[in-house]
Amino acid sequence: MAEVTTSVAALRWRDGLELLDQRLLPARESWLPVATAGAAARAIQALVVRGAPAIGLTAAYALASEARADPELTHLRRAARRLASSRPTGADLARAVQHILRVIEEAPQEQRFERALAAARALHEADAAACLAMGEHGVALFHGGSVSLLTHCNAGALATGGIGSALGIVRALHARGRLARLYACEARPVLQGARLTAWEAVRDGIPCTLLADGAAASLLARGSVQGVVVGADRIAADGSVANKVGTYALALAAARHAVPMVVAAPTTTFDLTCPTGDSIPIEQRGGEEVRRVRRARVAPEEVDVYNPAFDVTPPDLVTAIVSERGVARPVNAVTVRGIAP
Amino acid sequence: MAEVTTSVAALRWRDGLELLDQRLLPARESWLPVATAGAAARAIQALVVRGAPAIGLTAAYALASEARADPELTHLRRAARRLASSRPTGADLARAVQHILRVIEEAPQEQRFERALAAARALHEADAAACLAMGEHGVALFHGGSVSLLTHCNAGALATGGIGSALGIVRALHARGRLARLYACEARPVLQGARLTAWEAVRDGIPCTLLADGAAASLLARGSVQGVVVGADRIAADGSVANKVGTYALALAAARHAVPMVVAAPTTTFDLTCPTGDSIPIEQRGGEEVRRVRRARVAPEEVDVYNPAFDVTPPDLVTAIVSERGVARPVNAVTVRGIAP
Repeated sequence: MAEVTTSVAALRWRDGLELLDQRLLPARESWLPVATAGAAARAIQALVVRGAPAIGLTAAYALASEARADPELTHLRRAARRLASSRPTGADLARAVQHILRVIEEAPQEQRFERALAAARALHEADAAACLAMGEHGVALFHGGSVSLLTHCNAGALATGGIGSALGIVRALHARGRLARLYACEARPVLQGARLTAWEAVRDGIPCTLLADGAAASLLARGSVQGVVVGADRIAADGSVANKVGTYALALAAARHAVPMVVAAPTTTFDLTCPTGDSIPIEQRGGEEVRRVRRARVAPEEVDVYNPAFDVTPPDLVTAIVSERGVARPVNAVTVRGIAP
Repeated sequence: MAEVTTSVAALRWRDGLELLDQRLLPARESWLPVATAGAAARAIQALVVRGAPAIGLTAAYALASEARADPELTHLRRAARRLASSRPTGADLARAVQHILRVIEEAPQEQRFERALAAARALHEADAAACLAMGEHGVALFHGGSVSLLTHCNAGALATGGIGSALGIVRALHARGRLARLYACEARPVLQGARLTAWEAVRDGIPCTLLADGAAASLLARGSVQGVVVGADRIAADGSVANKVGTYALALAAARHAVPMVVAAPTTTFDLTCPTGDSIPIEQRGGEEVRRVRRARVAPEEVDVYNPAFDVTPPDLVTAIVSERGVARPVNAVTVRGIAP
């Protein structure tokens, strides 16, 4: 079996944090240096980088950068707050920031930068390893020969520190010669499926078919896919899954057609302090994302917009949740706790 | 109660057929003269005009135009075939063309144009009356006070010869002061919801909120709407509904949240020769509609695309079908026959 790898990365440290500017994909690959916590928070809000694990790693490295610029604790605590509040839904962000801040607080002032950077690198490596482990666990969910999988948004290398969560499973199957085809929903309004997932697939030689979000139910009705695989931004204690808006509709269609609905997320995405999906804060984004596509106006300026970035899929519609610690199946409070951090 | 009207029209006859070029909306209102059957067929294929009833009326007027240019039967039969084959899914197109061709065949050669034009006008008036009737029938489905409704794509004045099918119900409720809000799914890939439905609503003063297709299930989960109202392109004998791709996903979400799923379509859209949805031909459109939005490229050129223009919602997910003849509820072969032509 070929090694499971990718040629894609969302972020890197080159004597400073650099982000692949995902707003410009697939047209252009441009690495953006991010020197401060404020710049990182703005980059996260503007979707230069997105995907719960990648956002967490971005914040971790950005806080390390700040420790180099000014190792004073009051300053770093303020920077941590700024980073942690940049987006509300993903669980990884607050967790990563808290972790790096704790490392900083426990270090002597002259070692804060080195310790924080080492801790950020360790989180990055742990996330890469988690992706590989999720890939292996996910492969075991699909028996027999080749399968075609449907995914939503981007839960790939661009969303994580490794081969991806949902796309980690896709890549692991592909490396074994067991992936017939990846179907990718485009994920309006920001089109991460079209711009990012399709780009990752083309770049890594994964056979890929793109579709409008509204076409997914008919694809499932045709029997064209054997599984739906998605990532998550936060998983509640009962197994409710907050993920890119549109995931819930996929879960409903998958249930109707008895297609497994698989959620892959590292343990950093689990938040057992949320008892159910109702406790997960859902980010509402501006109307211009829907009234415009890229720069083109597609709707009257006067029209109101409902634009939640995420939705919540209840556990009864999720066949399995995969973390690096294993598989929760069926999905309930007990099995989720078994694969949680 | 105020009269139920609209300021919007999709087509008109001014000593010749003119189409409001829907490709340019909402940015620009431009009427395109369409002199020949070939030009009409190309306009239909290019989505200058769309919506099953509006397509049927376009073809009817275009065939009348051809009878003015050349009343010879062989010529007109060829023109009829060209028109009828321009798009495969909508039922109104073939029915309208057959009707006008029959009128032509039964008329003396020197009266073919006048008779065909009169017949096209009669179809147009009948469709406008059907829209008003559907509006009245639809209002009766929603009891009590104000309601918010969710619609998909455009089943409005731009899709019909009157106030619309689904939007006819919306307008009838609005005229009674009983519409709290219209929610409109944008309907990727061609964005008829964003470009057309939102524009109709703004123009006619209907309070409207736009959303990405993937956000509809979360809107239904929030309890924000009391009904989903959509049009149809073809209704099979068992009550299966072919409509704009994405309708099926809405029906699944509506069923999950016990929100009525109402389909409004004039009898011209019914095709009892199709026993079930499996017999309805589903148009597959080119990949560029998904790889690009307006002129902007949003996905790699190399990626494959799955782009069905329509999907089929099975009758068990449809709460009611409304035609100008009444309401089928529950939806089954017997009730559908009762409101069919």
